[in-house]
Amino acid sequence: MSLVQFTKQANLAMLTLDRGKVNALNPDVVEDLRSGLRRAISDDDVDVLLLTGTGAFFSFGFDVPEIISYERTAFDRFVHDFTSLYLEFFECPKPVVAALNGHAVAGGCMLALGSDYRVMARGRAKIGLNEVTFGASVFAGSVEILRHWVGHRNAERVLLTGALYSGEQAVALGLVDEVCEPEEVMATAIRAARAFAACDAEAQRSIKRILRRPVADRVRMVEASSIREFVEIWYSPNTRERLSSIRIH
Amino acid sequence: MSLVQFTKQANLAMLTLDRGKVNALNPDVVEDLRSGLRRAISDDDVDVLLLTGTGAFFSFGFDVPEIISYERTAFDRFVHDFTSLYLEFFECPKPVVAALNGHAVAGGCMLALGSDYRVMARGRAKIGLNEVTFGASVFAGSVEILRHWVGHRNAERVLLTGALYSGEQAVALGLVDEVCEPEEVMATAIRAARAFAACDAEAQRSIKRILRRPVADRVRMVEASSIREFVEIWYSPNTRERLSSIRIH
Amino acid sequence: MSLVQFTKQANLAMLTLDRGKVNALNPDVVEDLRSGLRRAISDDDVDVLLLTGTGAFFSFGFDVPEIISYERTAFDRFVHDFTSLYLEFFECPKPVVAALNGHAVAGGCMLALGSDYRVMARGRAKIGLNEVTFGASVFAGSVEILRHWVGHRNAERVLLTGALYSGEQAVALGLVDEVCEPEEVMATAIRAARAFAACDAEAQRSIKRILRRPVADRVRMVEASSIREFVEIWYSPNTRERLSSIRIH
Repeated sequence: MSLVQFTKQANLAMLTLDRGKVNALNPDVVEDLRSGLRRAISDDDVDVLLLTGTGAFFSFGFDVPEIISYERTAFDRFVHDFTSLYLEFFECPKPVVAALNGHAVAGGCMLALGSDYRVMARGRAKIGLNEVTFGASVFAGSVEILRHWVGHRNAERVLLTGALYSGEQAVALGLVDEVCEPEEVMATAIRAARAFAACDAEAQRSIKRILRRPVADRVRMVEASSIREFVEIWYSPNTRERLSSIRIH
Repeated sequence: MSLVQFTKQANLAMLTLDRGKVNALNPDVVEDLRSGLRRAISDDDVDVLLLTGTGAFFSFGFDVPEIISYERTAFDRFVHDFTSLYLEFFECPKPVVAALNGHAVAGGCMLALGSDYRVMARGRAKIGLNEVTFGASVFAGSVEILRHWVGHRNAERVLLTGALYSGEQAVALGLVDEVCEPEEVMATAIRAARAFAACDAEAQRSIKRILRRPVADRVRMVEASSIREFVEIWYSPNTRERLSSIRIH
Repeated sequence: MSLVQFTKQANLAMLTLDRGKVNALNPDVVEDLRSGLRRAISDDDVDVLLLTGTGAFFSFGFDVPEIISYERTAFDRFVHDFTSLYLEFFECPKPVVAALNGHAVAGGCMLALGSDYRVMARGRAKIGLNEVTFGASVFAGSVEILRHWVGHRNAERVLLTGALYSGEQAVALGLVDEVCEPEEVMATAIRAARAFAACDAEAQRSIKRILRRPVADRVRMVEASSIREFVEIWYSPNTRERLSSIRIH
């Protein structure tokens, strides 16, 4: 049974995170997301992708209670797979819209930032990169992608405060493109996806490549050394103590 | 007879596009623009340039009905000349103000983005890069220059929707610096040009070079391969069919 | 006697420019600032730094009446030391908050831009890079840091007009992060410093490094040749005449 539902509505493929209450990310979800993404890319009937989550969360990020027990090699592999996944979304030749049905936090936010357009529910849902608050670093590649959407200065604020933002605040920062009533998230995201699909696909693919390639090249250039530093800090006594106190299930 | 009028008012040189109703760009206009630009640069009495168009249009972009009949070699040469022209404006050692008297679309918008300050008429005039709507790609160099003015995120919106913007919307995006009544465009642009000319020329030239060189270097780095891709898509059956239906005269 | 006061309040180290009425920058101030910065970095009891000035000025920039008499070699050395100082602040492993008690102009503004968060007094105090108005160029490294905070387009406006901005205007541009009543500047800056100090230091240091390193690398790449050009223009007859008329004491 897959942890990511794959469904189609005409030329739209929908990937739905479906793992427990908070759609916590672990190696299996990452693998299933990648499979879903590749299936949608290679399916000639699919013109546009929609990424969302079941229940009240988009994704609360890494499954810390599970991942904290990993040996360093397994954790390292997971982190490589995860970072290459958000880049694969960011460079997806077909448009990807994220329907943020609920919280998109830490790794969940990084994943959302890989898409072309983010629709978020007004109200209680929060988005942010709060790693600094629990003693973790971030991936330099995700910082490049964050900067692409929010600029250098807002990236500083987002990362150094670790604040979580409402949809309205997130639109002002550039983290999210559109905010709407919670019950309208899916319809709004589908409308945005259809608008993307209405353009000439070849021209759009070329323009998207021109927009993304310089950013993706920088991601590739900085990611490996940043992962080493991230892993180092993850296994530091301070951070392990903070992580051990996280209970998300 | 030149397709670009060259006039002087004291230390201000004015280049006025003057080709038919929409100031459509073809090899002759590009050559005349380049001549005018170089003449203004080498004229020691000229401190500042103003770029505008006759009639109700700044420029509606490439003369598609003419250019569509070009052999690939001729089109390729035109595209090289055009892209090197907007970069020559962008790196012009003297300040350049654009008075957008009317629509500045596609190639016309790229040209306007090469100047230092854009004044646009409120109301009916529109500006935008709508290539995606008729199946063309864009030049990676023009994307770098666009990003310089509007940032990465707005560049995504401008290019992936292909929307055309009013002066008020364009100011909010950063595509344009000042909006005014249509009958005030020229006076407002001249005022902006005089303000540029009032500064110490040598310091200003040095500062402008510092601001532009990293962007211009990226343009030079990405332009050639992007032109190849642009030409490839231009000659694809889909795009040719869409282009054939464009009638701008 | 040092030209920079060094004081500590618990885990906060305060560096206070203390040189005459306008805290004009000369080689001695630069040396004392660097000593203070390094002392704060190496002191394990210090978690966060605060940079401010005595009296009604943060710093009005270079001490032109003194510096104008320098031989080219001495000026060149001063400029190298100054530019490497603002970069050392920008890459400081501990957070740095600037309390802009008064004007922060030209070199004074460049120094302020090296900090992580700027608090400025509402009202009469002004901030800006007005080099173009007195015929000087700027350092390419300071342009990269300026862009980091305000983006490319605002950097163009700030540098090519040479305008000086109130606190309210500076917040809108991104030059400053928070504006408050003049008598509240210090308390507000201390509050911001305490917020930085409350985060996990190792994670914060790592994230700050990821945010700053690409910018700092570009600074290092462009600074040397830009200094040569700056010095060339500084010694041009035009600029020396303008500089000679500056009286800041």
